[in-house]
Amino acid sequence: MERNIRLVLSYDGTRYHGWQRQSAQPTLQGVLEDRIRKMVQEPVRVIGSGRTDAGVHALRQVCNFRTRSHLPIDTLRRGLNALLPEDICVHKAEEASSGFHSRYDARSKTYEYRILNGEVPDVFERLYVWHVQKPLDGERMRACLPFLLGTNDFSAFRSVGSGNTNPVRHVFRADLLGVGNPLLRFVIEADGFLRHMVRSIVGTLVDAGLGKMDAERFVEVLRSRDRQLAGIKAPAKGLFLVNVRYDGPRPSCPAPGPPEAVTS
Amino acid sequence: MERNIRLVLSYDGTRYHGWQRQSAQPTLQGVLEDRIRKMVQEPVRVIGSGRTDAGVHALRQVCNFRTRSHLPIDTLRRGLNALLPEDICVHKAEEASSGFHSRYDARSKTYEYRILNGEVPDVFERLYVWHVQKPLDGERMRACLPFLLGTNDFSAFRSVGSGNTNPVRHVFRADLLGVGNPLLRFVIEADGFLRHMVRSIVGTLVDAGLGKMDAERFVEVLRSRDRQLAGIKAPAKGLFLVNVRYDGPRPSCPAPGPPEAVTS
Repeated sequence: MERNIRLVLSYDGTRYHGWQRQSAQPTLQGVLEDRIRKMVQEPVRVIGSGRTDAGVHALRQVCNFRTRSHLPIDTLRRGLNALLPEDICVHKAEEASSGFHSRYDARSKTYEYRILNGEVPDVFERLYVWHVQKPLDGERMRACLPFLLGTNDFSAFRSVGSGNTNPVRHVFRADLLGVGNPLLRFVIEADGFLRHMVRSIVGTLVDAGLGKMDAERFVEVLRSRDRQLAGIKAPAKGLFLVNVRYDGPRPSCPAPGPPEAVTS
Repeated sequence: MERNIRLVLSYDGTRYHGWQRQSAQPTLQGVLEDRIRKMVQEPVRVIGSGRTDAGVHALRQVCNFRTRSHLPIDTLRRGLNALLPEDICVHKAEEASSGFHSRYDARSKTYEYRILNGEVPDVFERLYVWHVQKPLDGERMRACLPFLLGTNDFSAFRSVGSGNTNPVRHVFRADLLGVGNPLLRFVIEADGFLRHMVRSIVGTLVDAGLGKMDAERFVEVLRSRDRQLAGIKAPAKGLFLVNVRYDGPRPSCPAPGPPEAVTS
């Protein structure tokens, strides 16, 4: 009988070329499939809740794979942690229902973007924050956030040339934590994300924090659907996938497009 | 006129072969001397408060060097931070009195050793903690700490073959913070440290936490002055130099040996 196994992972994305398997470069999917194959003694296909980009981290990523192996679930988890490199960790392994699909069944994902604001960098956080030296006005950044909530066309905050996927997404939450402290954390939960969406929003919010734009202009940019008007794309290293939710509310009206294979 | 410049640094020791300059390997002293030379346009000799070992980190290390350069002090600091690799940061640069010597004038140094206790590792802390999977009894470890205080011969906790330096040191403080949490922090302040002293003490404290020894046995090991009786040397990556103190009380009676070039 085929089992459907669900894993909860964390990883440091620094040395990976993103989630999706590539032939020549180390990727998270590639490393996971190789190590799981060693444990279950057959090829597997690992499905992630979404494809994180090169250099993006995860505090909690969810994936699943099917196997005919009879290995006890806890043996599988321990064995995987022994086989995996130190920058990937399996926190949980569990039997999922046969129909469970990490990507299609995800109701929402939450990303956190970390900015270290101040003149002096932090050598121990250098791989996990965007260091912005000039002072950021957190309240100006915060004033932009309500406009992200609800159902919107995020074409202004997607990567140029990211294909024809439906650009409408529903944002459940958008917060800026830590205002007044050196470490600012932008938290956003949505039913899905366009390619580079979080990093494009963060680059634009930082422009607001630097006084280059205000909330009014931020709305104009969002409504323009024109990527040329948004700020720069913030560096990958500050971005963390922090949660994937499989229960609870779906977005209310109007319904967004189908949840596609998306990334940040 | 020759100036004496004092720097306060932090560094991630992961990729360095310790503080002390070596010809073939990257070291902190070596990188600092090279970069400072570029700024002041003359060779300099950087004196650290102590020589941290390969892989040991510093939240706050102090060093000084002499130069005839007229560069404003803030230009020097900013320039250095621009030239230094991302894993070294100069927090402060200031003019010191002509007689100031980072090593001889240090009254005490404080080290912190970080242990992550629990089955699951933390991928983001993997370079900065010793991950101990088996449960540690923090209270058993704590019971050993009072015996470290005051003036003692620490021969049992020094590296084998670490020379003829006086093995007597005065410990001002020894604490275990975070008992009950996954992250345990052992903090020790002393007038100086023998080679591998903190890591040898930590290895022995972990034996106590695992139930392999108790406080009574810990005292016996300390008094034996026999390195063979102590626990293993804890890995370098969990160790941080967190402070160097240049004012305040000196140790009381009996006077310890002269403050030599010491390390952890």
